[in-house]
Amino acid sequence: MSAPLAVGIAGLGTVGAGVARLLTENAAIIAARAGRPIVVRAVSARDRGRDRGIDLTGLTWHEDAVALAADPAVDVVVEVIGGAEGPARALAEAALIAGKPVVTANKAMMAVHGAALAALAERHAVPLAFEAAVAGGIPVIKALREGLAANRIDRIAGILNGTCNYILTAMREHGHEFADVLAEAQRLGYAEADPSFDVDGIDAAHKLAILAALAFGRPVAFSAVHVEGIRHVSATDIAFAGELGYRIKLLGLARRMEHGISARVHPCMVPEASPIARVDGVYNAVVAEGDFVGRVMLQGRGAGAGPTASAVVADLIDIARGRAAPVWGADARALSDAPSVAIGAHIGAYYLRLMVVDRPGVIADVAAALRDHGVSLESMIQRARSAGEAVPVVLVTHETEEAAMARALARIAALDAVMETPTLIRIEHV
Amino acid sequence: MSAPLAVGIAGLGTVGAGVARLLTENAAIIAARAGRPIVVRAVSARDRGRDRGIDLTGLTWHEDAVALAADPAVDVVVEVIGGAEGPARALAEAALIAGKPVVTANKAMMAVHGAALAALAERHAVPLAFEAAVAGGIPVIKALREGLAANRIDRIAGILNGTCNYILTAMREHGHEFADVLAEAQRLGYAEADPSFDVDGIDAAHKLAILAALAFGRPVAFSAVHVEGIRHVSATDIAFAGELGYRIKLLGLARRMEHGISARVHPCMVPEASPIARVDGVYNAVVAEGDFVGRVMLQGRGAGAGPTASAVVADLIDIARGRAAPVWGADARALSDAPSVAIGAHIGAYYLRLMVVDRPGVIADVAAALRDHGVSLESMIQRARSAGEAVPVVLVTHETEEAAMARALARIAALDAVMETPTLIRIEHV
Repeated sequence: MSAPLAVGIAGLGTVGAGVARLLTENAAIIAARAGRPIVVRAVSARDRGRDRGIDLTGLTWHEDAVALAADPAVDVVVEVIGGAEGPARALAEAALIAGKPVVTANKAMMAVHGAALAALAERHAVPLAFEAAVAGGIPVIKALREGLAANRIDRIAGILNGTCNYILTAMREHGHEFADVLAEAQRLGYAEADPSFDVDGIDAAHKLAILAALAFGRPVAFSAVHVEGIRHVSATDIAFAGELGYRIKLLGLARRMEHGISARVHPCMVPEASPIARVDGVYNAVVAEGDFVGRVMLQGRGAGAGPTASAVVADLIDIARGRAAPVWGADARALSDAPSVAIGAHIGAYYLRLMVVDRPGVIADVAAALRDHGVSLESMIQRARSAGEAVPVVLVTHETEEAAMARALARIAALDAVMETPTLIRIEHV
Repeated sequence: MSAPLAVGIAGLGTVGAGVARLLTENAAIIAARAGRPIVVRAVSARDRGRDRGIDLTGLTWHEDAVALAADPAVDVVVEVIGGAEGPARALAEAALIAGKPVVTANKAMMAVHGAALAALAERHAVPLAFEAAVAGGIPVIKALREGLAANRIDRIAGILNGTCNYILTAMREHGHEFADVLAEAQRLGYAEADPSFDVDGIDAAHKLAILAALAFGRPVAFSAVHVEGIRHVSATDIAFAGELGYRIKLLGLARRMEHGISARVHPCMVPEASPIARVDGVYNAVVAEGDFVGRVMLQGRGAGAGPTASAVVADLIDIARGRAAPVWGADARALSDAPSVAIGAHIGAYYLRLMVVDRPGVIADVAAALRDHGVSLESMIQRARSAGEAVPVVLVTHETEEAAMARALARIAALDAVMETPTLIRIEHV
C-alpha cells in the first residue's frame, strides 16, 4: 500500500470534528477504497482547550489556519471554517498556490469566489473539491460533473435548504404560521438563532449557483441568482396549495433558456404527485434533466456532521486515488459564456392571493388589471364571504411573462379594496 | 486540447447506436468535460446493411467483435453486445489483455464473470467501467464506488428492473392480473417476447450482485443471490397490500448481517409512505444506507437507449480524463471476505395469503402451525365468507426467521382446507 495521504483540517466545529471521527472510525474501509490510508496530521481551530470528542494527540496545532498551507507534513487541506471571506478564503488561496489540493464544504466561498479559485486551481494544476458544499452527503456535485457529464442539462431543481424544508413541512402538517414553526425549529436546533441566511434563501442560492455552474458548464454566477425566502409564506397559502393539488417548497431552479441561463430561488407550488413534492423535513433533493438521461433525482440528508463528513472524505478518497476534475466540470477556456437571464423574462404560471374587502366590483378591477397586461386566468377561489372584512381571493394564472405579471400585480396592489401586500407564488412542474 | 480518445463500439443495437448518436450530438459538451474529443473510429455488429439512423462513413467495420481489441486505431472498447458469454466476454478479455480500457453495459457478464474480469483489469492496470450495467443513466455505480466511499454501507435496496416495476404499477392502477398486464407490456415494447429474464428476477439479481459487491467491497457473488420473480403476485395480493398500507415492489436487497452479507431479489411489501414505494412505472431507484451519510436515494430511467448511452459516455469521459477506480471499489487483496448468508437466516415480517375452504377449525390449524414454529401473528384479514368455496385469508406475522416460516408454511400448505399454494411476500421497511 502506498504512503498515507496526510490531511490538515482547518476548523474543528461539527463538520471538522465529524471528518476527523469518520477518518478514524472507518479507517480500514477508507484505506481500501483510497488505495492508501488517509490520516489527519494537523489541525487549526480557535479554542484549543475545547473538548470535541476527538483525540488530538500527536497532531500539529496551528493557531493560524493559513499555516496549514505551509506545513510540510500536510498533503491536502480540508477547509471547514466557513464564510466567503477571511481565513477560509485566505487558506484556500494559499494552499492552491502552494500546490496542495483543497477540499472544502464552503458554499458561500465557492459561490462568491469560485471562479477566481478555479482559475488558481487550474493555474497550479491542483484539485479543488467541494462535494460537501451542496446537499451534504448526497453526491450531487459528482453526479453533475461526472455521472451525467455526457448530457446537455436543460434544467435543475433542488430542495437545497433543510431548515426551510423543515419549516414548510411543519407548517403544512400542523397548520401553523411561519413565525411559530421557526421558533420551534430554533428550539430543536434545526434553525440558527439568526435564521436569515436560511429562511431568506441565501444559503440555497449559494448552492444553486454552484449546481448551475456545473450543470451548464459555465463560471459560477451567484450575483445573478434571483432570491426570495419563505418569510411571506403563510399557513393560508399552504392550505390553498393543498386544495389546488400543490405543495409549497423552497426550490432552487436553473434552466437553459433561449437567451441564456436563468437561476432563481423562491417558494414554489409543485404538483403534490411530483417526486420532489414528497421530499419532506430536513431532507434535500436535486433533480437534473438531461437530453439523453431524462430526469434523475437524488435525495438524502442535506446537512449534519455525518453527511457532510461523508462528502468531504469522498473528495479526499478521489484525491488519494488521483481522480481529478476541473472545478466547474471543464477547463476555464472550455466553459460556456451563456449570459444570465433576469427574472423578468421568466415564463410561468402564478398563484396570487389577495386579501380584499368583499364589496361589488373588486374582482372586476382585479380581472381588468390582469387582462390589461395580457395575463389570463386558469382558476379562481373565493370562498369565505364576510361583509366589510378582508377575505382571501386566490387566482391561478396561465403561463405568462414575469414582467407582465409584475406590472399587473403593481396595479392590483394599489387597489383600495386590496388590504395587504398580495402573495405571489410561482407554480413549477418539476 | 489533447488528442481525441478513439472508441470502438461492439454491438450496434439500440444502446450501441445510442452511444454513437450521443457522441455526435453532444460532441462539444463531451469534449469540454473530457478535456478532449471522444470519437468513434471502429464498430462491429452482425448486419452491416441495416439502417441504424447513424452515419458509419469512415468507420472501420469489424466482422468479428474481438478484432476491436487488436485494432491499433482503437483506444477504448465499448462492449454493448450483451450476454454473459460469447463474443462479449471474449472481447472484454482480449481488450483488457491488450491494455485497452473496456466500457460495458453488460450486467450479466459483470455479475457472472466480474471477479475474473476485475483480476484481469487489475493485472493489466486497465480500467473496466460499467456504469450502464445498473439502473441506466442513474449514476449509482459511481455513487457507491466514489460518492459514498467513506461509509460503511449497511444496506442497499433497489427497484432494478423497469419491466417488473411497470407491470406491478399497472396491476395496482388497473386491478388487472399479471398475465394480462404482461401481454399489454409486450405489446407496448416494455417487455420482451420471452420475458422470463425480467419477470423471474434474473436481470434484477445480476444488478443487485453488482451493487452489493460495490457497496460491501467484496467480490461479486451472483450465485449467492436468492431470486424470486413476480409471476406469483396476484391482483388479490396487490389489493390486500393497499388495504394494509403497503405497495408491492420487486426489490433487490442486500444487507450487512452479523455473519455476512445477504442478497436477495423478490417481491416485497413496502410501506406506501416510503420514498421507494412511490417510484412507479419504468423508473428505477436505489437506496443506500451508510453509517455517516444516512439514507441516500437515486432515481431515474433505468433503461432505454438515451439513459444507457449517457452512462456509457460518462465512463468514456472518466477514461479520457484519466479518472480510474478499481472494478469493485478496492484492489482485489483489499476486498472483504465476508461470506454470503443464505435466505433461511433472513429475519423479517411476512404477508401470507391462503385460499381456504371456509369451515370450522381451519384458522385454528393454521394458527397452530405458526405457533409450533414460533411465528407470531400481527394481524389477520378474513373477509369474504362463502360456505364450501375457497376464500382468502391474509396473515401478517411479526419478525421471524425465514427457516421457521418455511417450516410452518410447509405444514400449512399441506392442510386439506388450504386449496392453492400459499402466497408468501416479505415485508420490508426500506
